[in-house]
Amino acid sequence: MAKIPYKIYLGEDEIPKQWYNVRADMKTQHRPMLNPATHKPVQLADLEPVFCTELAKQELNETDRYIDIPEEVREHYRMFRPSPLMRAYYLEKALDTPAKIYYKFEGGNTSGSHKLNSSIAQAYYAKAQGLKGVTTETGAGQWGTALAMACQYFGLDCKVYMVKCSYEQKPYRKEVIHTYGADIIPSPSMTTKIGCEINERFPGSTGSLGTAISEAVEYATTHEGYRYVLGSVLNQVLLHQSIIGLEAKAALEKVGEYPDIVIGCAGGGSNLGGIMSPFMGDKLTGKANPHFIAVEPASCPTLTRGKFAYDFCDTGMVTPLAKMYTLGCGFIPSANHAGGLRYHGMSPILSQLYHDGYLDEARAVEQTSVFEAAEMFAKVEGILPAPESSHAIRVAIDEALKCKESGEEKTILFNLTGTGYFDLAAYKAYNEKTMNDYIPTDADLEKGFATIPHIEGIQE
Amino acid sequence: MAKIPYKIYLGEDEIPKQWYNVRADMKTQHRPMLNPATHKPVQLADLEPVFCTELAKQELNETDRYIDIPEEVREHYRMFRPSPLMRAYYLEKALDTPAKIYYKFEGGNTSGSHKLNSSIAQAYYAKAQGLKGVTTETGAGQWGTALAMACQYFGLDCKVYMVKCSYEQKPYRKEVIHTYGADIIPSPSMTTKIGCEINERFPGSTGSLGTAISEAVEYATTHEGYRYVLGSVLNQVLLHQSIIGLEAKAALEKVGEYPDIVIGCAGGGSNLGGIMSPFMGDKLTGKANPHFIAVEPASCPTLTRGKFAYDFCDTGMVTPLAKMYTLGCGFIPSANHAGGLRYHGMSPILSQLYHDGYLDEARAVEQTSVFEAAEMFAKVEGILPAPESSHAIRVAIDEALKCKESGEEKTILFNLTGTGYFDLAAYKAYNEKTMNDYIPTDADLEKGFATIPHIEGIQE
Repeated sequence: MAKIPYKIYLGEDEIPKQWYNVRADMKTQHRPMLNPATHKPVQLADLEPVFCTELAKQELNETDRYIDIPEEVREHYRMFRPSPLMRAYYLEKALDTPAKIYYKFEGGNTSGSHKLNSSIAQAYYAKAQGLKGVTTETGAGQWGTALAMACQYFGLDCKVYMVKCSYEQKPYRKEVIHTYGADIIPSPSMTTKIGCEINERFPGSTGSLGTAISEAVEYATTHEGYRYVLGSVLNQVLLHQSIIGLEAKAALEKVGEYPDIVIGCAGGGSNLGGIMSPFMGDKLTGKANPHFIAVEPASCPTLTRGKFAYDFCDTGMVTPLAKMYTLGCGFIPSANHAGGLRYHGMSPILSQLYHDGYLDEARAVEQTSVFEAAEMFAKVEGILPAPESSHAIRVAIDEALKCKESGEEKTILFNLTGTGYFDLAAYKAYNEKTMNDYIPTDADLEKGFATIPHIEGIQE
Repeated sequence: MAKIPYKIYLGEDEIPKQWYNVRADMKTQHRPMLNPATHKPVQLADLEPVFCTELAKQELNETDRYIDIPEEVREHYRMFRPSPLMRAYYLEKALDTPAKIYYKFEGGNTSGSHKLNSSIAQAYYAKAQGLKGVTTETGAGQWGTALAMACQYFGLDCKVYMVKCSYEQKPYRKEVIHTYGADIIPSPSMTTKIGCEINERFPGSTGSLGTAISEAVEYATTHEGYRYVLGSVLNQVLLHQSIIGLEAKAALEKVGEYPDIVIGCAGGGSNLGGIMSPFMGDKLTGKANPHFIAVEPASCPTLTRGKFAYDFCDTGMVTPLAKMYTLGCGFIPSANHAGGLRYHGMSPILSQLYHDGYLDEARAVEQTSVFEAAEMFAKVEGILPAPESSHAIRVAIDEALKCKESGEEKTILFNLTGTGYFDLAAYKAYNEKTMNDYIPTDADLEKGFATIPHIEGIQE
């Protein structure tokens, strides 16, 4: 049936030796992060108390197009990389579309997602700096698992603040994290000042990524030998995740393909940022013109309904301010929404690219239509996808159906970053038709926007 | 660090075109299965009411060394095969052993195990025969998931009787099976005569594989257009699973290796039977002499403490009688034991090979030592293993440590057939030290042995 294989693998010697830093090719840099106390652009010295020094340097690096991947990181990548690029023959057949659908499958490791790409890098730099441990937040639990694994590899202590509603929905996710020897704490917790405050102000709070970030940052900055690490949003994470796009591009080249459309879900940005990286580079340098689509949940519509403004990255307002699309640092998304993508902000890089029109399009999709796509995909392609990744599947299917109408043979590439083995409570809700689609009203959004800081002079 | 890659892949064009039928090379055939009514050797006509015709033919085939894999089956194999052969560099390093450890990783598909190799073949033959649906039993749930997926691919109805204690321990396993559109029924159920009887005789029974088999067979034989399929024990399943060993051998050849020791866990036999197949062929034909080790749970010690006798394959005593190692068809293993491998009998092929000394060794291992190995493996190799497969890991580690003592550079191959994402309740019990090691007493075993049928003339 197929000339091009179902699974296109690169060899381990083809794992990229360098990450690609899209900022080096951006026409307009995103506005600098601001120190929350001085409102001046953050310098390395501002970031060093929070982040490992090498990661802080990556965060600020606008100029180096390629950054070497340390050999020890590549050695750990070889345990699970290169990941396969899959040709979705059975999905194409089920849709009866002339489109060619490819997906990069990043879920074939025990963390269940692409997050391991960045956690290994971050744990490596923390260890190299002689640190004792790291702290982080996790929403759906994928990042927490990935970080626990990486810390185990490098012998680091690991404290994970997990958004309380996910902690309760996913009892088994925490067992994996325990098995890898990390501490896992439901957030808001009583282990930090900000956690105690939020528990007092909002009794019974089910938490949010923003709050969990505040707690993890507070712990790291008040304990000797600890730093904070995180799994999305920041430039350093997009840098590490560029390996997804680099491998996808190399694999597509092997079969003589180049994508017309590149699709990724967008919560904090690591997913889309990872798959799009070298293709965005081609667009920025005029070599090609793929169409990029960011897919976000209608329940947390940061790009499609948010404001492009300076805002805190966390709910507790202790982090630097970033210029990004945001629903307001005080926006609390519906606990009903399954999985991650519940973040009020968006990667400053993606935000700038969207603002400037290089990231062509953002679409907000509703939860039940996402699970409809997920179920169809699972049935025909044999991989049970994570709810987050299923946002990309939804739009990939929609685009393939448009091709069916128009008769166009477009090449569609999407990022299947995770598996749904720990999301079966959500699948259960979908199967039993108890899942609902929550879309915030304009009034809901206004409440969130009211929490965007109004600080003299910074928002112009 | 490594010349041989971590993951040795074959191309999709290297997926074997034929399964290997080890019976064609066996010096002594296992004794024939007996019709439970007449006690005469079963003929094709006896099997056809229960099994698909083509599968019944495979069941009885002693002579064809190779059997063609239908092209449509190979096409579905390409979705997830060839599976990688992994070099366990990090495990070797952690053990500080001169041994070279390889494992065939069969868990990288949504069914989470090797079971998909046989379920696709069985569903294909059922569809080709024009059947409406199939029934089966499942213990840990891997086989049920794999069959649900395969039935979905081919458009067949699927009814899965799941051992009740697993059904209750693994709420999410049934959601996956539901997502693939199969019915799943806790066994003993009230949907069959035998289920009702067992519920009446043993109120609160947590079930066993033997009972679930009886129920599935009863449903299939009393409903038009249905047949019974199963995931282990039978010759046809070992035939389909030979693809594991065939791929492993081809991948090892690519890197110039041949195993000194081949290890698989043994519940019904599909695991060890799969990995060993072509290597056993080499042994039977004098081409090589690898050492084979079957690993079973101390709680269900079929090979190490069972009898080599004719017994029913199920608890309800409706199936044919097979000459095999058995604890007695009435043996009910401890519900405490995590996962599968809780079967009273053993593949007649493996039983005969063990009896004749070609399967060199069987070892019974205790549950906590299995989870100790599983946890270590997860931490260093980055794959959370299924409890069943972890029995093989336990012995692979023990053998590698012997090599450390003796200084021997042996090549160890084991079969990592599944992931443990649905076994986290067991990991939790291990982490919280509430797991215990149940070993049946001699008196317990005697009770089981008393259920081996004493039928005039058949046991000599």
